[in-house]
Amino acid sequence: MATHDSWLDIPKGSHFSRANIPFGIISTSSSIEKHAAIAIGDHVLDLHEFSRHQGFMELQDFPATHIATFSKPSLNDFAALGQDVHTKVRRFLQDVFAKETSFPGVLRDNIETQRASLFRRDQVTLHLPMKIGGYTDFFAGKNHAYNCGCIFRDPTKALQPNYFHLPVAYNSRASSVVLSGTGIHRPLGQFLENPSAAESSFGPCRRLDIELELGALLCKGNQLGEPIDVNEAEKHIFGLVLLNDWSARDIQAWEAVPLGPFNAKTFATTISPWVVLKDALDMFRTPGILNETKLHPYLQEARKENVYDMNLEVELTTTDGESVTLSRTNGRNLVYSFAQMIAHHTIGGCPLEVGDLIGSGTISGAEPGTLGSLLEASHGGKRSYDVSPTIKRTFLEDGDRVTIRGWCGGDYSELVGFGECSGTILPAPKPSWLET
Amino acid sequence: MATHDSWLDIPKGSHFSRANIPFGIISTSSSIEKHAAIAIGDHVLDLHEFSRHQGFMELQDFPATHIATFSKPSLNDFAALGQDVHTKVRRFLQDVFAKETSFPGVLRDNIETQRASLFRRDQVTLHLPMKIGGYTDFFAGKNHAYNCGCIFRDPTKALQPNYFHLPVAYNSRASSVVLSGTGIHRPLGQFLENPSAAESSFGPCRRLDIELELGALLCKGNQLGEPIDVNEAEKHIFGLVLLNDWSARDIQAWEAVPLGPFNAKTFATTISPWVVLKDALDMFRTPGILNETKLHPYLQEARKENVYDMNLEVELTTTDGESVTLSRTNGRNLVYSFAQMIAHHTIGGCPLEVGDLIGSGTISGAEPGTLGSLLEASHGGKRSYDVSPTIKRTFLEDGDRVTIRGWCGGDYSELVGFGECSGTILPAPKPSWLET
Repeated sequence: MATHDSWLDIPKGSHFSRANIPFGIISTSSSIEKHAAIAIGDHVLDLHEFSRHQGFMELQDFPATHIATFSKPSLNDFAALGQDVHTKVRRFLQDVFAKETSFPGVLRDNIETQRASLFRRDQVTLHLPMKIGGYTDFFAGKNHAYNCGCIFRDPTKALQPNYFHLPVAYNSRASSVVLSGTGIHRPLGQFLENPSAAESSFGPCRRLDIELELGALLCKGNQLGEPIDVNEAEKHIFGLVLLNDWSARDIQAWEAVPLGPFNAKTFATTISPWVVLKDALDMFRTPGILNETKLHPYLQEARKENVYDMNLEVELTTTDGESVTLSRTNGRNLVYSFAQMIAHHTIGGCPLEVGDLIGSGTISGAEPGTLGSLLEASHGGKRSYDVSPTIKRTFLEDGDRVTIRGWCGGDYSELVGFGECSGTILPAPKPSWLET
Repeated sequence: MATHDSWLDIPKGSHFSRANIPFGIISTSSSIEKHAAIAIGDHVLDLHEFSRHQGFMELQDFPATHIATFSKPSLNDFAALGQDVHTKVRRFLQDVFAKETSFPGVLRDNIETQRASLFRRDQVTLHLPMKIGGYTDFFAGKNHAYNCGCIFRDPTKALQPNYFHLPVAYNSRASSVVLSGTGIHRPLGQFLENPSAAESSFGPCRRLDIELELGALLCKGNQLGEPIDVNEAEKHIFGLVLLNDWSARDIQAWEAVPLGPFNAKTFATTISPWVVLKDALDMFRTPGILNETKLHPYLQEARKENVYDMNLEVELTTTDGESVTLSRTNGRNLVYSFAQMIAHHTIGGCPLEVGDLIGSGTISGAEPGTLGSLLEASHGGKRSYDVSPTIKRTFLEDGDRVTIRGWCGGDYSELVGFGECSGTILPAPKPSWLET
């Protein structure tokens, strides 16, 4: 497609250019059941209403059973149709929105269908895009892993011996994955007042942190006992979202020996609402951080351009309304690709399922100002981080709003972005039955 | 109920006495859609067929919407009706099977309903009893935790400082939970040939192990950010199953730093098919292992009899057909109750859901012959364990079948048991795409 000109007014700098066409789940005042939509500029196309108005009539080999997936409350059934179908629908919708569309009667010149299915984005309610069965969080951001190792151990042994041999991961909690905009209660939990404390303390987390990550949502699973070939693994990826893996550092430090993080990670994980399809990201491929270790064959990916050149930003907004950028980094700061993560995840036979979410691990650059967590920016909480002349933080305060943004492409007419992934910190719960 | 005499021939020593009435999911030659059943003696009562034959007509205040849950492919909807409904249905069915039943026309004297709904257990196909959304594995078997600590560290610091302060746990993988009888492929993975190896090796796991556990299946969830009161937590338990948390010790040792076990645990977890309701276990309550640490209030359970006096056995059957008992232990060997695990799981706000599975952690006694894993029995793989004069094991061999059994009660006419939880080790997969 030579140009992304559209008959619809798509603002310059929109993450949702005609090159993107990300999928999400919405409800509207006229159609309160959840159903599928795409984002385009400041608008959404309601795919349930669009299909009710014969919007897909001119799409070849697209049966009613496929169309029916747009009326479901999650994208799982559409995702399960496979990447060929995603590609076809995305290309068709790109054409539908083209200034010189091949299908003018479908939407451009059809005021009735426009009225029924094309809404301003701020008029619709967004929902979690998929029913997430499993959520796995990896640790593939090498700079983050190194920085954490320096904080908790020392630079000479910052990375564990396994780090360059396999993508380290843990199973996290799918039930606590929430949509951008959901308030995040500061968790209650146990922690040590200081590393030499004899007894644990209990109360609201004091070291509440963010983790800037990418999430991959799956469109294809595997059977128990059947590992996925690393060079076929991308076929399992529906698309990507931004992900904030909120973390309670003090709770984590106390609980995580010997079985890993648990309550430190399961109070909430926020994802952005629009799934950017694998197709839309393909032109932004780039090699990740070089891994000089010879990997076992099951992790050897033929393609070296296996991560994305993607701008990532974290913004902090205080209760005073002041907003500052905490971090600017890039999606290339990963030492393992999602394909390698999927291959490792399944090498022992673990079944993945449509709708599973895989987190990349925290994405940090190597310089100050490019870090994906406050743990790193504050040197383990030892130094307050001067976010602006008036704002200092070691960890998050109640009322802080954190917003992650991510986009590929520098030419403003062709951004492929995610929009926002945000959450505001609410005070810890005070259960009536709990003496404190 | 003074006696458990039944008009049905229930063999002495059956785990499924009239005192039990455990729930499961079956399909039959006449009704191939999955649906609910109970086990009784060597029989099952097909609740879908029973209800089609007006079996529940005489049960008061039991609407059609409740009855409809028996025709679902999992017990989730029935579980979600709550413990009062489970109690009512269990008591009614106990009465239906009583020699002097109050409802003779429902089944005892009704040959037509018997023919349609009462089957020999070996004539039906069993399925996973619930759709499991989240699977969390705890570490509440103190003897196991201590023994592992002695193997990997030393007896003076065998238990981590957090151990007596909180029930340690990790999120495991719901997608790999399988029903008793499912073959278990030996997982492929990375491990070190020896602790000082410079490079990792890849291949079939060499230290394949069992973990004897109990699993609790939930009938009630909580909202994000709303912790569950420890003294209300039992209301969230539908019932218990036996659980074998198959473990790849060599993979675990290499991968688990710093984020905990991952592929070592996600290739398979086996559960027994029949859910023994919380009600049926109540008369076998007993105190667990004493925890002398003063717990934070959110973990202080008023009731001290919070675990079960339950016989547990592990049997090994070789490819030659020889069967030997690996271990005999008791369910009281836990230092935290399921109620405490639920309270801890949610104290940070993590949402639990109907159908979630919570593993107790490995249950070992303090003596040889009472251990719940081969890791312990073989002293970390250092000594072969003489199972019988002819059978020696450090870890499992291909073809080994492991069967866990569990039951409460010593009077043979009133056992409340789980039947079997078994699995046979299959050779590791050999993916065609993988050079080895």
